[in-house]
Amino acid sequence: MSALIVFPDLTRLVRPQSIVLVGASDKADSIGFRTLENMTTHSRFQGRLDLVNPGRKEIAGRACLPSVRDLASAPDVAILAVRADRVLESLRECGDAGTRFAIVFTSGFGETGADGRAVEAEMRAIVARTGMRIYGPNCPGLNNINGGLGMSFSPAWRIDRLPGPIGVATQGGGLGRSFMQAMDRGVGTGLWCSGGNEVDLEVSDYIHYMADAPDIEVIVTVLEGVRDGPRFMAAALHAARRGKPIVALKVGKSDYGVKAAQSHTAAIAGSAEINAAAFRELGIVEVDDIDEMIDAASMLARGKPTGREKIALYSFSGGTLALAADHVGVARLELSRFAPQTLAALGNALPSYAAFDNPVDVTAEVLVDSALTDVTLKATAEDPHTDLVVVPIPVEYGRTTELLASSMVKVQQTVATPIVPVWMSDRSGAGQRILIDGGLMPMRSLRGMARALTRYIGYGRWRAGLQPDWRPLGSAAHPQADATATVSLTEAAAKAVLKQCGVTVPAGIVVASVHEAGRAFEALDAPQVAMKVVSAAITHKTDVGGVRLGIASVAEARAAFEGIHASVAAHHEPSAIDGILVEPMLAKPFVEAVVGIHRDPVFGHVCTFGLGGVSIELFKDVSRRLLPLTPQSARAMVMETRCYQLLAGHRGQGAFDVDALVDVLVKLSDLVARHADRIEELEINPLAVRPQGKGVSALDAVLSIQQGTENLPW
Amino acid sequence: MSALIVFPDLTRLVRPQSIVLVGASDKADSIGFRTLENMTTHSRFQGRLDLVNPGRKEIAGRACLPSVRDLASAPDVAILAVRADRVLESLRECGDAGTRFAIVFTSGFGETGADGRAVEAEMRAIVARTGMRIYGPNCPGLNNINGGLGMSFSPAWRIDRLPGPIGVATQGGGLGRSFMQAMDRGVGTGLWCSGGNEVDLEVSDYIHYMADAPDIEVIVTVLEGVRDGPRFMAAALHAARRGKPIVALKVGKSDYGVKAAQSHTAAIAGSAEINAAAFRELGIVEVDDIDEMIDAASMLARGKPTGREKIALYSFSGGTLALAADHVGVARLELSRFAPQTLAALGNALPSYAAFDNPVDVTAEVLVDSALTDVTLKATAEDPHTDLVVVPIPVEYGRTTELLASSMVKVQQTVATPIVPVWMSDRSGAGQRILIDGGLMPMRSLRGMARALTRYIGYGRWRAGLQPDWRPLGSAAHPQADATATVSLTEAAAKAVLKQCGVTVPAGIVVASVHEAGRAFEALDAPQVAMKVVSAAITHKTDVGGVRLGIASVAEARAAFEGIHASVAAHHEPSAIDGILVEPMLAKPFVEAVVGIHRDPVFGHVCTFGLGGVSIELFKDVSRRLLPLTPQSARAMVMETRCYQLLAGHRGQGAFDVDALVDVLVKLSDLVARHADRIEELEINPLAVRPQGKGVSALDAVLSIQQGTENLPW
Repeated sequence: MSALIVFPDLTRLVRPQSIVLVGASDKADSIGFRTLENMTTHSRFQGRLDLVNPGRKEIAGRACLPSVRDLASAPDVAILAVRADRVLESLRECGDAGTRFAIVFTSGFGETGADGRAVEAEMRAIVARTGMRIYGPNCPGLNNINGGLGMSFSPAWRIDRLPGPIGVATQGGGLGRSFMQAMDRGVGTGLWCSGGNEVDLEVSDYIHYMADAPDIEVIVTVLEGVRDGPRFMAAALHAARRGKPIVALKVGKSDYGVKAAQSHTAAIAGSAEINAAAFRELGIVEVDDIDEMIDAASMLARGKPTGREKIALYSFSGGTLALAADHVGVARLELSRFAPQTLAALGNALPSYAAFDNPVDVTAEVLVDSALTDVTLKATAEDPHTDLVVVPIPVEYGRTTELLASSMVKVQQTVATPIVPVWMSDRSGAGQRILIDGGLMPMRSLRGMARALTRYIGYGRWRAGLQPDWRPLGSAAHPQADATATVSLTEAAAKAVLKQCGVTVPAGIVVASVHEAGRAFEALDAPQVAMKVVSAAITHKTDVGGVRLGIASVAEARAAFEGIHASVAAHHEPSAIDGILVEPMLAKPFVEAVVGIHRDPVFGHVCTFGLGGVSIELFKDVSRRLLPLTPQSARAMVMETRCYQLLAGHRGQGAFDVDALVDVLVKLSDLVARHADRIEELEINPLAVRPQGKGVSALDAVLSIQQGTENLPW
Repeated sequence: MSALIVFPDLTRLVRPQSIVLVGASDKADSIGFRTLENMTTHSRFQGRLDLVNPGRKEIAGRACLPSVRDLASAPDVAILAVRADRVLESLRECGDAGTRFAIVFTSGFGETGADGRAVEAEMRAIVARTGMRIYGPNCPGLNNINGGLGMSFSPAWRIDRLPGPIGVATQGGGLGRSFMQAMDRGVGTGLWCSGGNEVDLEVSDYIHYMADAPDIEVIVTVLEGVRDGPRFMAAALHAARRGKPIVALKVGKSDYGVKAAQSHTAAIAGSAEINAAAFRELGIVEVDDIDEMIDAASMLARGKPTGREKIALYSFSGGTLALAADHVGVARLELSRFAPQTLAALGNALPSYAAFDNPVDVTAEVLVDSALTDVTLKATAEDPHTDLVVVPIPVEYGRTTELLASSMVKVQQTVATPIVPVWMSDRSGAGQRILIDGGLMPMRSLRGMARALTRYIGYGRWRAGLQPDWRPLGSAAHPQADATATVSLTEAAAKAVLKQCGVTVPAGIVVASVHEAGRAFEALDAPQVAMKVVSAAITHKTDVGGVRLGIASVAEARAAFEGIHASVAAHHEPSAIDGILVEPMLAKPFVEAVVGIHRDPVFGHVCTFGLGGVSIELFKDVSRRLLPLTPQSARAMVMETRCYQLLAGHRGQGAFDVDALVDVLVKLSDLVARHADRIEELEINPLAVRPQGKGVSALDAVLSIQQGTENLPW
C-alpha cells in the first residue's frame, strides 16, 4: 500500500551549468534587471546564461532571445521574472523545452485565494506532464552563497555573502532573511532555499539535498506547517544518517500562532505537542525564536557533540560568573571538575585573590596581561574533564575586552575544545568584532547560551542513542485515513485482540441472561467481579449506567445484570446491548497507566503514555513516541514521565512491574505496525501495572479501525 | 520586640554640596587622578571640592591639603582613593571631622578573607562612633548621571552618560556596568549606586532613596543575596507605595549559582523559591538575565500598566507576525480585538492582499509608502481595545526599515499607547538608530518581548491588587531565631492550640491504658477510629509503628493500644510515650491539603499551600505567601495551584469547601501573627477539605515553638 518516496536531485538547481533568465530587463529597479545584475556583476557564475525578452535584441551587451523556444539547448534552470499573467505560458514553454528547473519569483497566486490556487494546480500539471520541477512561485529566489551564485532579485544578495557550513530551507522569506543577517554575528551560511508557495519543490526536498551536499554541515529550517509528513520524515532521517543536524523553528505553537500562520499560508499547522515529540525523535533540534536558531545552528556548526559535555566558565567578573553558573545549573547542564594539573596551572598563574577553580574568575586586573590570559584560558580549555569553555563578557571594556577576545581566538587555534563567548552588553566593540572575525560566534545572553548548549548537548545525546535501522511507521507514504469511516470494536472484542497478541486481560465472560450472570460469578471464582455492558454503540459505558464494580455474590451479580439493562434502557434501544461482560476485579496494589496510540495526520501513528488521574489531566505528564517502539524507546518513554517515580518505588513502597509494562508497550506497537492501514486508535485506560513480577493487565480497551476491515483476521 | 527600621537620607551623598577627595593625584592613570578628572572635567559639580594629599601642595591648579583635619568645614562626602593600609586611618579622620558620607573605592578587605573582615568590623565601629556613613569599600563609586556628577574612578563614567528615569542599585560592579551599557540601546539611567562590600550602606538604602528621588521612576537591582530581610522588605514596600516598580535580578537560583556567589561575596543566597514568592508579593519584578532586566525596566519606564493590557501586532512579514503571535499566545498574553472603526481604517488604507485584522500584515510593498505606514500604524495604536502595539522587525532593510522606524517615532508622538519595536536582526542599521534616538527602546527578540510584556502587565496586575496597609510579618526588624532552641508540641497539644483559635480538629481522647482505649472507642461512637502515639520526642509517628487506622471495635482498640506500645518500644524508652490519641476517622469524601508555615531567615514567616500526594511531591504544585494572609490572598493562593481544579469540582464531582479552607488559612495566619516571636513552624498535613458546607478538619498537626515559651498562654 505504501508508495516509494523519491527525492529529486537538486544539484543542477543549486549549481546549474546553464541558466535562462526569462524577463531580463535593463530597466533599473525592475525585477529582471536586478536579477541580471545579481547573476552577473555579483555572482561568480561560469556557465551559460541566456536572456529572454521578446521586446529586446540585447540587454547590457548580451544577446536577447524572443522566446525560450529559441534556446539552442535545454537549460538547467529557467528563472521567471515575468508578470503573473505571463507565468503559466512561460512555464509551459520552459517545460516543453526540456528545462530541468524553473524558479518563479512572481507573486499573486495561491496566497491571494481560490483563483490563484487554480493557477497553481495548472503549474503542477505542467510538472507532471514535462518533468520540469518548479521552485516557487512567490519566492525571493535561491541563494547559493558557497557557490557564489545569487538567483535572486533581492538587493540583499550582494550584502549577505559570508559563506559557511549552514544550509537554510524556508517557506516564507522574512524569517529566512533574518537568519541570513546573522552573518553580521559571524554565522556563515552556504545556501538558502526559500520556496515560497511550494507548488512543487518543498522544504523536504531542500533538506534532502543539503543532507548530501558536501559543503553543508548543519541544516536550518523555518516551517509554518508540514504538508507531507512521510516526505518530511524521510528527509530528516536522511540528514540524520548523514550526521547532519536539523534545527527547526516551527510556527504555530499557540492558537494565535496557528491562526496567524493559516491566514498567511495554506500549510497544515498540526499539534505543537505531536510536532515537538516527532522532532525530538527524528533528532530535529526545535527552537522557539530566530536568535535561538542562530545560536543553536552556529554551535552545531562548531563541533559534533557527544551528549556528555561538561562546561567550564571563565571570566573577569565574579557576579557575572555566579549568574552564568546559575544559568548552567537551572538548565541542568554540568560544570566540569578540574583535574589537579588544571588547578595547579591556574594557581601558578593567577594572583591569590582570583578564583582558580571552576568557575574561573581571573579578575579584571589579570585581564590586562594578555600573556596571563593566554596561559589561564589555555589551561582551562585543556582541562581533561572540560568539553566546552564559556566566557561571559558582561561589558565592553575597550582594550581589556580586545585583549581577552584576541586571546580567545589565539587559544582556540591551539585547542579543540570549543570556546564560547557570550557578549552580554548592548554596546558593540572591537573585542566583539575580533570574536566574530575569529570564528567564535558570540552568544548574546547567558540564557541564550544555556539554551544553545542544552540543544547542542541534547543533540549529541540523541545521536548517541540513534538506532540506525529505525524508521517511523508514518514515514512510509500512506493514503490519508478517512476519519469518518472508522468503527469501534466492543470492549470484549478489543480485549480479545489484545489477548491474542499476548497482552494480559482479565478473564472475562460475556453473559446474556440473569442466570448466566450468576453462573459466570461462580465460574470466575473471584472475591469481587466487575460487570460492564457490551455494545459497539456505547462509547462511554459509565455515563449510561453500564458499569457495576465490587460485586461480591451471585445474588449481586444477578441484580447487577438487571440493573445495567435498566440503566442503559434510558439511553439506548435494548438491541444495542450485545451482552454483559463479567470480569474478576484485580486485587490491589496496582498503578493505573494510560496507553493511547492514534494516527496523526502528519506523522502517522503516535503512542502516548502516562499514569492516570491528576498527573495526566492537570499536569499533562505524558510522554510520546512515534511508532514503532523498541524495548529501549518504550522504557525511555516510561522513565521520562515525572510519575515514573511512582512505578519505581515511591517513598519506600515496592516497585511495580516496569519490565512487563515495557513489554506490553512493544506488543501494542507491533500490533499496530502489523495493521497500520487498519488501526486508527487504540487506547488502554487503565492499564493496571502490578507489583514487580506480577505483570500488567488491560482493564479497559478501545480499538477503532477502518470501516470494512472488521472481519479481516488479526 | 521589634526595632524601628530607619533609612538614612542619602540626598547629600547623591547630590553633595561639598566633597573632599582624599588621595587626589596628578599621576596619570592613578585612581586619584582619574577620579579628579571625572569630577572636574567630566562632571557638572557646582559645590566645593577639596583635595587631600600629604605629599602635594597643588594638583591640577587646585590647592591640596595635607589632611582631612585641615578642612575648613565638614564635607558632605569624602572620597577615599588611598591604599588599603591607609583606609582605616583616613576613615577615622573623616568621621572625626564630621563628614556625612565616605565613599571607599579601595579593595582588599572582606573579599580577601578573615583579616579583611576584621578591618571591615573596625569600619563599622567608626560608623557607630561618628555617625558618618560608609559606601563601599571595594566599589566602583557612585554615578549620578541625571545630576552630572561622577564620583568614580572609572573611564566609563565619561561614556555612560544617557540620563533617564531608571535607578540602578547593585552590590558588585560588573553586572551593573553591563546594565549601564544598555544606554547604547536607548535605556537612560539616572543614578547607579554600587556599594561593593556594603560594610554599612546597602542596596536597601539605595532603593529607599530612589523611591523618594523625583528623577527616578523605575528601580533596578542585582542581588547576590539579601543580608537584612526586614530592611529590604521595608525599602521595597516604600517603593511600592511611591508607585515605583523594582526590577530585580537575584543570583543564586541553582546550586552552582549559590556556590559561585558565595565564593564571591558573603551575602546569604537564600532559597530561590522563597525569594521568588516574596518578590512577587512585594511587587518586585524578578528577571533571570541582564537583557531581560533591560527590557523589563525600559518597558516600565514607558508607562504605568493596569494589568489588563491587550496587544496589537503590526509588521510587514507574515511569517514574522505568525511567530510573534505564537510568542504572545505561549506567554498567555492577549491580542486585542480591533474595533470596527479600526478595521475600516486599515481596510481603506491597505491593498486587498494585506491582512488588516490583528496581527496587521501591511506587506513589504506598503512599507515603502511612509504616509500609508503612518496612517495604518496610527489606526492600530488608536484602536480603543489596544493597549500596546508590538512591531516585530525581522530584518534590516535599509531605507524600508528607516521609513518604518521614522513612522513609529512620529506616530508615538501623537498616541499614548506604547509602540514597542522588536529589532530581531543581528544587523544594526539606521532604522534601529532612529528607534533608539526616538525613545522607542527596541527589544532584541520575540521571546524577550513576550517576557518583558508579561512582566510589565504582571506588575500592573499586582499594583491593581495591592492592599495599601498590608506589610509582611517579617518586615518588622526581629531578632534572628535560633533554630537549635525550638521544641515541638505533641500532636494532641498542637491540635488543642488549633481548636482554641477556631480550627476544627477531630474530637480526640488521649488514653493511658488498654482499658481507657476501649472506653474511648465507645465514647467516640464512630464507625472507625485512628490511634496514634502521643510523644514530644517522636516526630515521625508512622516510622516507629505509632499509628493504627480503621479500628472498628473495642477489641481492636485495645489490641491497637498494646500494638503501638510494642512497636514504639523498639525505638524509644517507654517514658517517651505520653499516651495514645484516639480519634474518629473522618468519613470520605474529602481532599487532603497540606498547609505549612515556617520562618524564613530572610523574609520571616511564609505560608506554603498544596494538595497532598503526587501533586506536591512530584509536581511541586504549591503556592506561597508571606504572612499575614488576608481572605483575598488566602483565596488567591488556593486558586493559583493547578490542583485547585480538584477542589472546584473536577470532572463532574461536587465542589469542596474552599470557603472554609480560606477561613482556616487566615486563622492560622492570625495565630502565627499573634505569636510571631514564638512560633517557628506550623504544619497541618493533612488538612481534610470536605464537601462544600461541611468545613475542613486538621487531621494531623505539628507545632514547633521557641524553647522556653512552652508555658506561655495561647
